[in-house]
Amino acid sequence: MITDRAQVTEMIISAKVTKGIKWSQAAEAIGKSKEWTTAGLLGQMAFDKPQAETLGKLFGLTDEAVAWLQIVPYKGSLPTAVPTDPLIYRWYEIVNVYGGTIKELIHEEFGDGIMSAIDFSMDIQRQPDPKGDRVNVVLSGKFLPYKSY
Amino acid sequence: MITDRAQVTEMIISAKVTKGIKWSQAAEAIGKSKEWTTAGLLGQMAFDKPQAETLGKLFGLTDEAVAWLQIVPYKGSLPTAVPTDPLIYRWYEIVNVYGGTIKELIHEEFGDGIMSAIDFSMDIQRQPDPKGDRVNVVLSGKFLPYKSY
Amino acid sequence: MITDRAQVTEMIISAKVTKGIKWSQAAEAIGKSKEWTTAGLLGQMAFDKPQAETLGKLFGLTDEAVAWLQIVPYKGSLPTAVPTDPLIYRWYEIVNVYGGTIKELIHEEFGDGIMSAIDFSMDIQRQPDPKGDRVNVVLSGKFLPYKSY
Amino acid sequence: MITDRAQVTEMIISAKVTKGIKWSQAAEAIGKSKEWTTAGLLGQMAFDKPQAETLGKLFGLTDEAVAWLQIVPYKGSLPTAVPTDPLIYRWYEIVNVYGGTIKELIHEEFGDGIMSAIDFSMDIQRQPDPKGDRVNVVLSGKFLPYKSY
Amino acid sequence: MITDRAQVTEMIISAKVTKGIKWSQAAEAIGKSKEWTTAGLLGQMAFDKPQAETLGKLFGLTDEAVAWLQIVPYKGSLPTAVPTDPLIYRWYEIVNVYGGTIKELIHEEFGDGIMSAIDFSMDIQRQPDPKGDRVNVVLSGKFLPYKSY
Amino acid sequence: MITDRAQVTEMIISAKVTKGIKWSQAAEAIGKSKEWTTAGLLGQMAFDKPQAETLGKLFGLTDEAVAWLQIVPYKGSLPTAVPTDPLIYRWYEIVNVYGGTIKELIHEEFGDGIMSAIDFSMDIQRQPDPKGDRVNVVLSGKFLPYKSY
Amino acid sequence: MITDRAQVTEMIISAKVTKGIKWSQAAEAIGKSKEWTTAGLLGQMAFDKPQAETLGKLFGLTDEAVAWLQIVPYKGSLPTAVPTDPLIYRWYEIVNVYGGTIKELIHEEFGDGIMSAIDFSMDIQRQPDPKGDRVNVVLSGKFLPYKSY
Amino acid sequence: MITDRAQVTEMIISAKVTKGIKWSQAAEAIGKSKEWTTAGLLGQMAFDKPQAETLGKLFGLTDEAVAWLQIVPYKGSLPTAVPTDPLIYRWYEIVNVYGGTIKELIHEEFGDGIMSAIDFSMDIQRQPDPKGDRVNVVLSGKFLPYKSY
Amino acid sequence: MITDRAQVTEMIISAKVTKGIKWSQAAEAIGKSKEWTTAGLLGQMAFDKPQAETLGKLFGLTDEAVAWLQIVPYKGSLPTAVPTDPLIYRWYEIVNVYGGTIKELIHEEFGDGIMSAIDFSMDIQRQPDPKGDRVNVVLSGKFLPYKSY
Amino acid sequence: MITDRAQVTEMIISAKVTKGIKWSQAAEAIGKSKEWTTAGLLGQMAFDKPQAETLGKLFGLTDEAVAWLQIVPYKGSLPTAVPTDPLIYRWYEIVNVYGGTIKELIHEEFGDGIMSAIDFSMDIQRQPDPKGDRVNVVLSGKFLPYKSY
Repeated sequence: MITDRAQVTEMIISAKVTKGIKWSQAAEAIGKSKEWTTAGLLGQMAFDKPQAETLGKLFGLTDEAVAWLQIVPYKGSLPTAVPTDPLIYRWYEIVNVYGGTIKELIHEEFGDGIMSAIDFSMDIQRQPDPKGDRVNVVLSGKFLPYKSY
Repeated sequence: MITDRAQVTEMIISAKVTKGIKWSQAAEAIGKSKEWTTAGLLGQMAFDKPQAETLGKLFGLTDEAVAWLQIVPYKGSLPTAVPTDPLIYRWYEIVNVYGGTIKELIHEEFGDGIMSAIDFSMDIQRQPDPKGDRVNVVLSGKFLPYKSY
Repeated sequence: MITDRAQVTEMIISAKVTKGIKWSQAAEAIGKSKEWTTAGLLGQMAFDKPQAETLGKLFGLTDEAVAWLQIVPYKGSLPTAVPTDPLIYRWYEIVNVYGGTIKELIHEEFGDGIMSAIDFSMDIQRQPDPKGDRVNVVLSGKFLPYKSY
Repeated sequence: MITDRAQVTEMIISAKVTKGIKWSQAAEAIGKSKEWTTAGLLGQMAFDKPQAETLGKLFGLTDEAVAWLQIVPYKGSLPTAVPTDPLIYRWYEIVNVYGGTIKELIHEEFGDGIMSAIDFSMDIQRQPDPKGDRVNVVLSGKFLPYKSY
Repeated sequence: MITDRAQVTEMIISAKVTKGIKWSQAAEAIGKSKEWTTAGLLGQMAFDKPQAETLGKLFGLTDEAVAWLQIVPYKGSLPTAVPTDPLIYRWYEIVNVYGGTIKELIHEEFGDGIMSAIDFSMDIQRQPDPKGDRVNVVLSGKFLPYKSY
Repeated sequence: MITDRAQVTEMIISAKVTKGIKWSQAAEAIGKSKEWTTAGLLGQMAFDKPQAETLGKLFGLTDEAVAWLQIVPYKGSLPTAVPTDPLIYRWYEIVNVYGGTIKELIHEEFGDGIMSAIDFSMDIQRQPDPKGDRVNVVLSGKFLPYKSY
Repeated sequence: MITDRAQVTEMIISAKVTKGIKWSQAAEAIGKSKEWTTAGLLGQMAFDKPQAETLGKLFGLTDEAVAWLQIVPYKGSLPTAVPTDPLIYRWYEIVNVYGGTIKELIHEEFGDGIMSAIDFSMDIQRQPDPKGDRVNVVLSGKFLPYKSY
Repeated sequence: MITDRAQVTEMIISAKVTKGIKWSQAAEAIGKSKEWTTAGLLGQMAFDKPQAETLGKLFGLTDEAVAWLQIVPYKGSLPTAVPTDPLIYRWYEIVNVYGGTIKELIHEEFGDGIMSAIDFSMDIQRQPDPKGDRVNVVLSGKFLPYKSY
Repeated sequence: MITDRAQVTEMIISAKVTKGIKWSQAAEAIGKSKEWTTAGLLGQMAFDKPQAETLGKLFGLTDEAVAWLQIVPYKGSLPTAVPTDPLIYRWYEIVNVYGGTIKELIHEEFGDGIMSAIDFSMDIQRQPDPKGDRVNVVLSGKFLPYKSY
Repeated sequence: MITDRAQVTEMIISAKVTKGIKWSQAAEAIGKSKEWTTAGLLGQMAFDKPQAETLGKLFGLTDEAVAWLQIVPYKGSLPTAVPTDPLIYRWYEIVNVYGGTIKELIHEEFGDGIMSAIDFSMDIQRQPDPKGDRVNVVLSGKFLPYKSY
């Protein structure tokens, strides 16, 4: 009996390690970006039925697990409020060091409101560089203005 | 007597509101990007002497404050571990929801290591869109591989 | 020298107590709802110039304070992560006890996404009741669907 | 041996995913609102015997689980003090940004006291809107005045 | 300029120490219990106008402070989530050790609901005892049943 | 193998739900108050041998569990520092709102010291009231004076 | 205007540094142990009138400060829940490493109950030792048995 | 498969309850103090081979468990940063209330440095007293001076 | 089914205790330093295929476990934000007491930037000393300057 | 009136910025290492009288401040349990990622005990490197064995 999406994520990760599947393969299989697909496979997004079935075959999941992939999950992928993993911590640090800057510059350009994290996409690319390759990430979020009423 | 960089940041913010200076004006004045300049003015970066003096004139700072702008500050711009401001929280949420995804995809492409938050730049742009303009942010950080020894 | 929106909020609250101004009067003065106006006067929203000047006269604020009312503030009105005030705690308790229910029912009706807290309004009314009057609150937020990409 | 209401909640959620039951169906089955019924099925409310038996049949629960549904549970449905799920977080953010406003306006109208979270009901509805449908939520709580003695 | 009820509480405590006023004297002066009056003087309750004026005279407060006594305060008298003072900690310990017991016995007697902390009174008395006098405290709160709807 | 008193508490609670035993029955069976007995059955007190055996029969416990009932447990019945359950939270709120008051009034009457939570008893009673029945709780703790030395 | 015992503690510490007074001198002046006297001077105990006046003269305190020394303070001398100072941390570590041991051995000898921290004394002595002098501390607390009722 | 010292501690505690072994018996069996032996059996110290084998026989442990007793454990015996158990909390309270005092008096006698918690011993004794027996604890730790370099 | 690197770490630690393998033996087996190898075996680093296979044989791991050793893990080896183990705490204390010093001296020598924890190595050696042997640790990290842009 | 060592630290830092003094100059002035001297000037160590007077002249401190430099301070230089400054955080990360490794290797070499943070020295050096200079830090702490008794 599966009682939690996290159990499905564990099955997927376990299958990935044993079968040597790549996240980008899974993304191709359902015709979506590698960022959104990986987020979904890690338990952060809900898939529709055909996507879930395709992924179920790829990772060798049971029908019950495939059903769970279609349920909107309780989101949040970090085990602690401040992440301990160095790679993820660097992102938290960017928010900590540049948080005020991001806020000021978006308000200077757009006025009061936020950059959506829902109507949002992310694209991660390798940029070759002779001094050491770089990770380039483009974040795109709709600006949502606060409304007065 | 100034005893803390935060006091200089307060002077700058106060002058900005009263004089109506824009962050982008300050950036132009020292010939740097608006992202890095704003981070510095908010107390996260150190300026060199000519930069500090130019900014000192623009914001009407005392000599002591100008000296402080050249000191490497204790960094971190958020008053709480989990930010309460909605705009900044959305970035924390992105790290929370997509943190595992970012980690997996960078490792899939580059192996073990991190995306640097030090050899790092950020560019924030408005992207016009008929369904509502978008905030586009490009983050670029050097990949640093973990070394075995 | 004002260095923080919180100082303006303190001036407003102090003037309110001494002059006996009501929040609803302030709202009428600028022609906005009492909910949005109060949120703004408590340092959570930015006013435009005419609104700020009207409020400045009503509360007897300095020009510097009026300038600060037009700046987008760092939001968040609670001094602790879990509020200690009984009235505000009851709202936190509602989120705690009904949080899962709200999530499930919105997803059942709309699919994956959120109810916006930005494109959002709130209306608080007294509902007379022989067994004791009731507080009725209507919250209205645009549904924002998560997008796959 | 069931030792905790959370185990019953897991059985219910598991059955819901596998059998494709809707929360609103369960509410109809016992003739109560979908909000209260869902809260109960998620382990936040106690059912009476006929309700528990009806729900037990619908979800295929054991007699022991049906007995547990009639026990007043230890309430609280969030795994962390500040919720990580974006949908639930938006509600926490509303309390954070509007908490002071709610407090001030209820006191302005009613004097010292609270809006009850016990003698309380909630109604969640979809409001069609050409600019994007809205989630409308009505909260109704009895006002309880603080007594001097 | 007073900007916070806590400042009024400080004035009262300071006057109390210097003038040697007893809490019970203050309670007699306004004809209320010593428990409710002390809570109010410590910034947890709002007084009506005649009460505030009487107390203002007793403690030698300014008119502005007297006005603040009539405002509903942001409640919560502990500086930390877990109190450090041994006397107050013992009460927290009682909640910690007996919390489950209190919950079980109230539910066994009354069903689902709470004991109100708003429609509530407290009475603290010394009970002489040859083995050492005892502190006897009577708490009385209305039972509020959870309603199904 | 039982390795923890909490496992015995779970057995007791499970048996209570299935067999429909009341806490007050258990108290009668061993001739003690319902408050102390319930605290013990919830893992907060140690029973002597005859008490443990009587309770073991009532709840159908194994010999090993009966042995554990006689061991002084690691006390503390709340899963979080600030309780989430509304009934228990109201008690925490009382400590938070009235904590300073309790401290001041006990010191005014007794001088420096504490009200013991060890040489302590509690009595919970229903008080019928036409406006809604009340929960009346009497707490009695020995006053322990701080000694100078 | 003194509004807090901590202000008196600061005056005492400041006078101690400037005048070079030793804690043991202060203890001798009032004829009490150095442990209890220091605790009192650091704001953890209340002095009686003659003691407060003697200490007031020794440290050059104002009459208002002397009055405050006679008020029971809000106790707790650590700025954080886990102390950062290495000397004090070692004590916290002893509680952390030996906490279970202390609990088990006191229960083995005395049964259920606690070692009082109120009817309590402490004596700190230097014990010369050729391998390096030792700090010897004797803690003596009355055993208080839990009572059944 | 044992993967953690805590599992061995659970086996020992379980055996102790079932077999009725006393901590002091275990100490005698290996010729060490009851304080150090109990700390070791609770997973805070490492035993040498003969000690581990003797204890293994006494508590009926497997060879694997006996091997684990000889491994230096990850220390720390409290489940939370602030202990909830009343007996252990009193010790934390002593550190909290007397922490500053201990620090001041050790520095007054010895200068800058700490009292070691490693080169350390503890002795717990019952002291008969007609007003109620007392728990007497002697802590002895080597003084370690901070060195300048 | 292995679902988490921590399970592999448990297998390794269990095998180490039962088989009496030393960390330095494992390091020799793969021709790497004992520091990096131990970090990897404790779940903080990823091994390449030949290393993983060699270690798999040494510790008697399954193929699945060997596959997991090659996956980049979620890093962070402490169970709490402030470590409780005395040996590890001393390191946290060094960061706490000397953190400001380290920051100031690196900035004085190098300007703004950090000492990398990724392009980093550590060497732990015993230094014999007649007054008691010393632990000598050399940390070497590349200096990464903050870039302005 | 100085009431806290932190005030002296602020004076020193302020003088350092205005007068352009280097930490290494201060160290030379008193003939001690730059690491220990800086720690002392940042409020973590106590100076003797001649050292304090020399430093007082260098930084232009008052006599009162010079007196405070000779008092053992309450140590701990980080404003939060998990540091936010990137340079200091990297050290915390080293403890987090390598903490278990450090513990295991010291125990493998020395047995149970700790590396002292009191009988301790630190040396920070620049190591030129064509691929980017490195920060080399040598930590040396006496090994202190746990004693059985």
